[in-house]
Amino acid sequence: MTNSKFEPGLDFAHQLDTNDDLASFRKAFVIQDPNLIYLDGNSLGRLPCRSIDRINQVVEREWGEQLIRSWNANWYQSPQRTGDKIAQLLGAGPGQVVVSDSTSVNLYKLVLAALEMRPNRKRIISDSLNFPSDLYILEGCVHLMNERSGNKSHLSLEIIPSEDGISMDSPTLLKAIDDQTALVTLSHVAYKSGYLYDMVAITDKAHQVGALILWDLSHSAGVVPMELDRWGVDLAVGCTYKYLNGGPGAPAYLYVRQGLQELAHSPIWGWFGQHLPFAFEMEYQPAKGITRFLAGSPPILSLLSMEAAIELILEADIWKIRDKSKLMTSYLVYLVDNLLVPLGFTLASPRIADRRGSHVSIRHSHAYQINRVLIEEMKVIPDFREPEDIRLGLAPLYTSYREVWQAVDRIRRVVVEERYTRYPFKRLTVT
Amino acid sequence: MTNSKFEPGLDFAHQLDTNDDLASFRKAFVIQDPNLIYLDGNSLGRLPCRSIDRINQVVEREWGEQLIRSWNANWYQSPQRTGDKIAQLLGAGPGQVVVSDSTSVNLYKLVLAALEMRPNRKRIISDSLNFPSDLYILEGCVHLMNERSGNKSHLSLEIIPSEDGISMDSPTLLKAIDDQTALVTLSHVAYKSGYLYDMVAITDKAHQVGALILWDLSHSAGVVPMELDRWGVDLAVGCTYKYLNGGPGAPAYLYVRQGLQELAHSPIWGWFGQHLPFAFEMEYQPAKGITRFLAGSPPILSLLSMEAAIELILEADIWKIRDKSKLMTSYLVYLVDNLLVPLGFTLASPRIADRRGSHVSIRHSHAYQINRVLIEEMKVIPDFREPEDIRLGLAPLYTSYREVWQAVDRIRRVVVEERYTRYPFKRLTVT
Repeated sequence: MTNSKFEPGLDFAHQLDTNDDLASFRKAFVIQDPNLIYLDGNSLGRLPCRSIDRINQVVEREWGEQLIRSWNANWYQSPQRTGDKIAQLLGAGPGQVVVSDSTSVNLYKLVLAALEMRPNRKRIISDSLNFPSDLYILEGCVHLMNERSGNKSHLSLEIIPSEDGISMDSPTLLKAIDDQTALVTLSHVAYKSGYLYDMVAITDKAHQVGALILWDLSHSAGVVPMELDRWGVDLAVGCTYKYLNGGPGAPAYLYVRQGLQELAHSPIWGWFGQHLPFAFEMEYQPAKGITRFLAGSPPILSLLSMEAAIELILEADIWKIRDKSKLMTSYLVYLVDNLLVPLGFTLASPRIADRRGSHVSIRHSHAYQINRVLIEEMKVIPDFREPEDIRLGLAPLYTSYREVWQAVDRIRRVVVEERYTRYPFKRLTVT
Repeated sequence: MTNSKFEPGLDFAHQLDTNDDLASFRKAFVIQDPNLIYLDGNSLGRLPCRSIDRINQVVEREWGEQLIRSWNANWYQSPQRTGDKIAQLLGAGPGQVVVSDSTSVNLYKLVLAALEMRPNRKRIISDSLNFPSDLYILEGCVHLMNERSGNKSHLSLEIIPSEDGISMDSPTLLKAIDDQTALVTLSHVAYKSGYLYDMVAITDKAHQVGALILWDLSHSAGVVPMELDRWGVDLAVGCTYKYLNGGPGAPAYLYVRQGLQELAHSPIWGWFGQHLPFAFEMEYQPAKGITRFLAGSPPILSLLSMEAAIELILEADIWKIRDKSKLMTSYLVYLVDNLLVPLGFTLASPRIADRRGSHVSIRHSHAYQINRVLIEEMKVIPDFREPEDIRLGLAPLYTSYREVWQAVDRIRRVVVEERYTRYPFKRLTVT
């Protein structure tokens, strides 16, 4: 899959679409305006047609007619059942993934659980490519532990800097993981550049020094295959509203490998994680297995709508999805090189497909303005990331090669026709 | 409103329905089988008709068509906007209630925030009528603080016992609140007996000794009016799926009074609580005001469906709802006294309407079996609570007096006809 195979014209995009094994999946999504090119499936996946039927069934039949009886009939086991479905996309056996809360809350639970399992170690390692929200949670955990313990220097968070802001130098990262490290936690795919980490090498290094590893799979689940069980990953979290198409703010999931489950404890002692929630005992006793990481009642409408979306992905082969994703991002990089770099853009994502997830960032000093023109005039929806990146997310189940070509062409026109100059140049200011 | 005004026959129930100001609200709910008497609205409220339209709009138009653009257009401010609507039911001004996470997670956040605001105090006070899930969260917080601080005797949770398991002796409770108390936290209405606490007296006592107060409003919001602002309540949490009819597992809310907001910090440093979530800064800085208590992305389908249900309640007057609720539970108690007590039932709820929420518990040594017959043969849905209570929840917006009469009559028949003896006698066993 070298770029030299590609050609710049629209005909070639059609040819790629014709040869696309997954092309038929596009029909499984609601596409109200076929001329709107949606390249933000890495933030909010499109609506699967079947989610409409599922939500109607849940609302009108399960809630409206069956009322409270649906808790026993269907809802009560849905966090575990849906977790087991997501697990299939992550290379995890059953009983290790559960749907619960948000990614932030799950990360919080697992970080504190990890620190409890490594009480005498002083360091949490992450890096500057990690999603800032994850870093906030880590900072909060460190603050909690240090302030509460009355020993302000006990625990530290080390954020290893990326030199180019795009990828992480592996030797630097691996070297930082030492025998004082309690936990290493990283995003599997970086939210901004799309850099894909070597999960095996980093997990192995953490284990060599006795540290635990926690991966945030939000930007990789559903487009990058992985083998959590086989690779010995300890802990993972992720959201379901990006490539999993679970819907806005759909509940997140967490993974704790079987061997750790009896040692690990959630700091949030909720009744859904209790061993007998409806016995109404006065004292908390954690449930066996992954269930102990649940907290309160899950948001059923959001959860069961998401379950339908997961079932759709399971019908496609995750390896085929990855093959298409790599071909498609490579094609996009080829078009960027040929059509956009001459106009002042640079590639802000890894050049090698094996080191990328399914989105590509391009950089331009007028990125904010260009992004606005694309949305408001050109029927292209990418997203802007501070200070000057435009992210183009390719969702193999519904993005076509034709759309990739057209999106690049529209970006080109925005710059050539200087349309962006009519919009105010904006850098983020605090108001 | 003395019981002597009531009469035992069905005609009298009709008369009460005819005089019911709120009777028209029943049409605002989906009632698929008019012969099914649903007395579990205190666990899961019925489906408001308008919630169907709202969820369709959110799914098909906002998610399906508008995609990511709906975050700015409608979703992003929905936790605050919906919080302000709930606030109107709680006697709270705007900017103090926010929708977020589950009740358990919210309780966890606010308990740790409270402990941070009262660092030198040793006690958390609750009682044995509190929802066990709340006690689990409290136990978890105490465990976290004590284990982490290396000082195992620092903080204690004192659960004041109720003598009769139905109500709380006020002097006993008030006396327990002393100058070593950091936090008093109770359910406004007890989940099992329906006992309604004197929020003013207990809040005042907590403040007299310098303690903070946190009320769980799950079983009172939407049926019991209150004045959080005027009464000086510090903190509160609650769910939205009971009398607020928000749908299964709909997200919960929390209240922090204005004067405490800058002093209080969530332990979960999530990006929705960050001051500029889309600036993607590396360091967490809490947002101003109530927003800082948000964590991760909220489950939008569940949240916006719930918002429609709140709007419906706001159209009814909360004081009228309370009047009907008191009249209706009084009528139920009258029928229990006259028709069920002779059959071996006892009342397991307060006798005085002003000390009750909107559900009534009745006790019988065969409660588990009777409850099963009611659900499986008699088209009555109450719920069973260990060891021998049947809870009858009356939702003033859709429960009719006729249904109350019919439910009692069906319970009577189950016992008179000894139908329950065909079901196994069950006490909770661990399986």
